[in-house]
Order: sequence, then C-alpha cells, then structure tokens
Amino acid sequence: MKPIITVFANSPDQGRGLARDMTVRWALEEVGQPYEVRLVSFADMKQAEHLRRHPFGQIPTYEKGELVLFESGAIVQHIAEQHGGLFPAASDARARTIMWMFAAQSSVEPLVVQCEVAVLLERDKPWHSARMPMLKVRLNARLKELSNSLGDADWLEGEFSAGDLLMIQVLRRPACAELLVNYPNLSDYLLRGEARPAFKRAFAAQLAVFNNQ
Amino acid sequence: MKPIITVFANSPDQGRGLARDMTVRWALEEVGQPYEVRLVSFADMKQAEHLRRHPFGQIPTYEKGELVLFESGAIVQHIAEQHGGLFPAASDARARTIMWMFAAQSSVEPLVVQCEVAVLLERDKPWHSARMPMLKVRLNARLKELSNSLGDADWLEGEFSAGDLLMIQVLRRPACAELLVNYPNLSDYLLRGEARPAFKRAFAAQLAVFNNQ
Repeated sequence: MKPIITVFANSPDQGRGLARDMTVRWALEEVGQPYEVRLVSFADMKQAEHLRRHPFGQIPTYEKGELVLFESGAIVQHIAEQHGGLFPAASDARARTIMWMFAAQSSVEPLVVQCEVAVLLERDKPWHSARMPMLKVRLNARLKELSNSLGDADWLEGEFSAGDLLMIQVLRRPACAELLVNYPNLSDYLLRGEARPAFKRAFAAQLAVFNNQ
Repeated sequence: MKPIITVFANSPDQGRGLARDMTVRWALEEVGQPYEVRLVSFADMKQAEHLRRHPFGQIPTYEKGELVLFESGAIVQHIAEQHGGLFPAASDARARTIMWMFAAQSSVEPLVVQCEVAVLLERDKPWHSARMPMLKVRLNARLKELSNSLGDADWLEGEFSAGDLLMIQVLRRPACAELLVNYPNLSDYLLRGEARPAFKRAFAAQLAVFNNQ
C-alpha cells in the first residue's frame, strides 16, 4: 500500500518546489518509498473533507491505511522511523537529528515565514518598507548562528539526515536564499542538498504537476 | 546520572513559568526523572561556553553524559522516548502525538511569538497599534482551528501525551491566554494541564528559582 500525500493542484510557487509537499516528496525519495498524490485546490483545502485530514486547512498531509498525518516535520519523522536512510542508528545522534528537525521548523522557518507574511499580507501597509529590513536583520542573525554551527561540515550531524532535509528546505525559501551570499558554507550546504538524486526526483515530480495543470 | 537543564538565572517572566525551561521541567516531572539545574544569565547565554550547548544562545538545554540537546520540542521527545508516560504505545498514536508536538512548535507558537515580538521590539514604532490587532486575528484563527480539533475531548490524542504538554505550554503564553475566552474547550484544556501534579511540581521548582534570586 502506497502512502498518499496531498499537494497543491495549482502551486503558488510556479513549480519551484518551495511548498511543503516538496519536503515530504524528498523524504519519500530518500528512503525509496513510492507514493501517490492527491491534488487539492485552495478551495478544497477549506472544505470539510480536507479539514478532517488537516485541521489548519493546509498541505501536505500523509495518509496510509488508518493513519492520517499533517505537519511536514512529523511526516518526515514518521517516514524516517519506518525506513532506513534518514536517521542515524546511534541513540544520541538520532536525538540530535530530531533537535535539528525542530530547529528548522521552530527556530529558523518562522523567521522566514515572517518575511513572506510581510509581503503577502502587509505589502500595501504604510509600514512595509520600514519593517522589511528589520525582519531581514532578525533572519540574518539566525542564519549567522546556523552558519557557525555547521562550520566546515558537510551536514549538521554526521551523515545526511532528516535534520538536513528540513533545514535545507527552509534555506531554499527565497527570503533565506537571498541572504546566503553572506554565508558561503550555508550556500554550499544548500547546493549539496539540491544535488542529491532523491532531491532531483522529488523536484521533477512536483514540477510535472505544475506543468500538467 | 541526572540530566542537567539550563534555565534563566533571572527569568523575565517573573516566576510565571512561561519560559521554555518550564516545558522541559514539566516533561521530566511527568516521567519521574530527577534533574539538576544550571542557572545562566542573559550575558552567560551569549558566551562561548553556552553557545557550545545552544548555538542560538537561548535556554533550555539538556545535558546527560555526552548528549547535549537544545530545542524544547526535541528535548521533550527525547525524554518521552527514554521513559514511559508521554508517548502512547501504538505506532499510529505515537506518530499523531509527534504531529501535535510539531503543530504546537511550528503552527501555533510562531503566531504567539509574533505578538510577543511586536511588544518587545516594535512597541515604539508608529505602526504598533495598527499591526497588533492583525496579529491577534491571525492567532485567533489558528486557535479556532485548534478548538475545532480538540472538540469535547480531554486531550488531543487519547491519553495525555507530549503533544498536549507542548500545546498547553503554548496556550499558557499571555497572547494566547487572553484569546481563550472565545474557546471554552481550550480554556478547560489549559486548566486540565495546569491541574496535573507534575505541572504543579515543575511550576513550584521554577518559581523557587525566581524567589531565591
């Protein structure tokens, strides 16, 4: 039985693989698990059928048998626990991988989302041009700390893991990506992630949905 | 060997148990694991010694032998995996518990943090009074969705779990708490969490640090 994931029928990112379904696709490709896709429109996401899968009316979701999950971090963790390839074997290294997963989702991504929200919801407000540089300063400070953590390592914690997958997906978002010029080790880290065959397969799959709409 | 957690030497919350060390203390109390505390000042948190524990210069951290963790979500998950009492036994229920942990940390808390950041960093800006209601509207919408998810259940997923612990800690933050009057089921849920003996022990322990400073 293949898991089913929900993805945008019409992704607002124009096929750039920036929506969170890309994160789940990449994880499934890393572990070699085939999957099916259920396309949902923005209207579908707010209907009762989808809200039963995702109470916040978003994508992605993951369904397999009786199990229905939302939250891309939790979905990636579930995939990592069911298959080899995304979690290290040693207990301490696994705990530190999960630490980087939470760091990506709750200490880095929210600063990116703030930049995106400012553009999406407050672009026409009189304060937009004065606030935006403040948001970039906050995000840049976090990226500097992350750059110091990574140092000259290839990945955050030994081998490539679910922590890198989530962190790289955050770094790919445009608000982050434009600041990476300040941090060559993070730029290289991002490129190292995008060069993985599993990333490329996932990217092609989401692009095909966009091109076929 | 007892784990050591770092906590504020002078908590800015005045002993209200709103800092994230409370989350870790509560988890340790739920599983009956004694722990030691290392007090850090705001100056200490930015020094090299603490940055080796927490690259973002924050609290809490968790140290046990060679393992050093930051991110309260990851610390709670590690505690839940090492002891009974915070994770359900069944695989699907465990995956859904982890889903609620990520939901608390990455879908609810960031909207709370935005309200707090607006007060801490933008209170003197000319846009503050116009922006604050927008932030409350966004947070309120998420709380409505969470209220619909909880319905008339006691806890988010069967028995009390690490997902409830993290979610209740977010709901306790003042920006959330003031909106809960709209959602009696969430207010009751919050009170149910705070009534747990483990919560009370953790709260007393952090209050003692504040009172002894």
